[in-house]
Amino acid sequence: MNIVVLYGGTRDGGNTELLTETVIGDLSVNRIFLKDYQMNHIIDQRHDKKGFDNVEDDYDSVVSKMIDADVLIFATPIYWYGMSSVMKTFIDRWSQTARDDKFPNFKETMANKHVYLTAVGGDEPRIKGLPLVQQFKYICEFMNLNFIDYILGNGVKPLDVLKDEKSIEYAKAINKSLMNRG
Amino acid sequence: MNIVVLYGGTRDGGNTELLTETVIGDLSVNRIFLKDYQMNHIIDQRHDKKGFDNVEDDYDSVVSKMIDADVLIFATPIYWYGMSSVMKTFIDRWSQTARDDKFPNFKETMANKHVYLTAVGGDEPRIKGLPLVQQFKYICEFMNLNFIDYILGNGVKPLDVLKDEKSIEYAKAINKSLMNRG
Amino acid sequence: MNIVVLYGGTRDGGNTELLTETVIGDLSVNRIFLKDYQMNHIIDQRHDKKGFDNVEDDYDSVVSKMIDADVLIFATPIYWYGMSSVMKTFIDRWSQTARDDKFPNFKETMANKHVYLTAVGGDEPRIKGLPLVQQFKYICEFMNLNFIDYILGNGVKPLDVLKDEKSIEYAKAINKSLMNRG
Amino acid sequence: MNIVVLYGGTRDGGNTELLTETVIGDLSVNRIFLKDYQMNHIIDQRHDKKGFDNVEDDYDSVVSKMIDADVLIFATPIYWYGMSSVMKTFIDRWSQTARDDKFPNFKETMANKHVYLTAVGGDEPRIKGLPLVQQFKYICEFMNLNFIDYILGNGVKPLDVLKDEKSIEYAKAINKSLMNRG
Repeated sequence: MNIVVLYGGTRDGGNTELLTETVIGDLSVNRIFLKDYQMNHIIDQRHDKKGFDNVEDDYDSVVSKMIDADVLIFATPIYWYGMSSVMKTFIDRWSQTARDDKFPNFKETMANKHVYLTAVGGDEPRIKGLPLVQQFKYICEFMNLNFIDYILGNGVKPLDVLKDEKSIEYAKAINKSLMNRG
Repeated sequence: MNIVVLYGGTRDGGNTELLTETVIGDLSVNRIFLKDYQMNHIIDQRHDKKGFDNVEDDYDSVVSKMIDADVLIFATPIYWYGMSSVMKTFIDRWSQTARDDKFPNFKETMANKHVYLTAVGGDEPRIKGLPLVQQFKYICEFMNLNFIDYILGNGVKPLDVLKDEKSIEYAKAINKSLMNRG
Repeated sequence: MNIVVLYGGTRDGGNTELLTETVIGDLSVNRIFLKDYQMNHIIDQRHDKKGFDNVEDDYDSVVSKMIDADVLIFATPIYWYGMSSVMKTFIDRWSQTARDDKFPNFKETMANKHVYLTAVGGDEPRIKGLPLVQQFKYICEFMNLNFIDYILGNGVKPLDVLKDEKSIEYAKAINKSLMNRG
Repeated sequence: MNIVVLYGGTRDGGNTELLTETVIGDLSVNRIFLKDYQMNHIIDQRHDKKGFDNVEDDYDSVVSKMIDADVLIFATPIYWYGMSSVMKTFIDRWSQTARDDKFPNFKETMANKHVYLTAVGGDEPRIKGLPLVQQFKYICEFMNLNFIDYILGNGVKPLDVLKDEKSIEYAKAINKSLMNRG
């Protein structure tokens, strides 16, 4: 089982990372820190006769790893009640990939992967993180991804989320179910 | 009344622009096309002793114009059931501005501005755009902005939204209320 | 085209009714005021060997009219950020109807009807009415109903909604689209 | 600490009850099974000169117990992506209580109680139960109730929810936090 973790945070060792590593536990995973890759915003050329121009950046290498995964964990701090701009920049580019000959059948290659969302915020994340969850649900439906579950953890200062015992317990329970799936 | 329109699209003359220009009508506004400005992703240094590093890009000039506005219209195509990464990159940086001596009392200077959201998407926008609306509500609550109204228009191909007569009528009604406010 | 309006209000001539009658205009419709019918709460006997007991009340006569419709307009005041208990009592009983020999193939007979939701509330209905819209979307998806559109009008005191010009304009635009469908 | 559990189900020993009893554990609580009380739908007489007519049913006895509580657990099966009609009938009546001399300062007496929501459904409850959570958030905000947390458990057939290990773990964690508050 190839698990790829897509980290959207911009700080090392942040609360989202701590919560997500509880989900991961002893599982072998491939961690991708999106902030370490140079990625351009999408330029919408869907309606141009020539289609999308080729883009020279690190995006393709990341999307290739994502395609190879069986399980995807999207891990993002909650910034302004949504995913980080770093993560959104990555996802917006999928619209180009869906029309990119370098990734034939992109949508088909993504279908049925298992998806988890882990997100930590400081302002009532269990409520104000819900639009983010609903957005991910729609993303997964469009891509025929299987959105298994999510955790909305609470934390502002470094290490805070470790005090959110309910989310930590839930993270452990997800870890257990992933271990059993093996 | 100073109206600033923040365009988050990456294509000129797109459906979001057409719908938003119906809201604008004959009003005098200041249009900002975010894609024309170079802006970096936020780097979360809230918990660094030295605070945020200064960033050399076009962000400050845009945020200055936003601060001067009485009315803000956030106009974004719906990409992956959310605002565009271009717009999210701009908004995420507000967290830095709130701690930036160049913008003292950022939150206070933003308070009570009237906010509108116009967004166009092709996949059931009146339903699947709702998480975006809810996210904007939370953003406005946090900043004490006054979220007046929103339109979720329908369109995929160029000019499509003009056929969404209900949204166009609603856009005209918003225009009328803005004209009366004068 | 058989249009059935299901009114969930408990006051005659309320704001929801005014807004909905703007949607109706000169169309010929069948109005059902749910408050005028005696309906029991569902008793969940899905897992009883004998199934559901027969219930003696007015429910069957209403559901029969609903089944005959091509277009359904659910019109409810927003009570506590949801539909009225009168309307919810009616809808909850559908679970019994789905297992009732008197209504064979209930789900199939409901499929593809066009559904509209009109709802009026006094506490930020365009935002705080959104969970109600999302609930209706899920209801429609489950029943294969075609959820065409909704209006969330603003009003507390009698006649208030008539001052919500944007919603009235939107209601007229829905009326126009229904007239054209004719 | 006076904990009152308001059960909205219509079947004894259902999944919602099993999950909620895991939250309760060894705590001493006051269980109210709403289905065992006769309650009328609200009749909206807010705008009548004489106000609300007195209603002869079991509602007052239940609302009195609710007022005496420090902690409220609303436990409902997810029927049609919302709370049961039995529970909605109870809550809708609060609008009358707020204007009822028998319950002076109703809103003040409710303020700051801690609220939990437990709900079980069979159709993607962790996603499709979210409008119910958002509705409860708005209810709590209006009443100045403190909405602490919620669980959306998975189950259709009797006993199913016990297999939803993640929700059971979360229920235990809530129990632990309630025990510590003791």
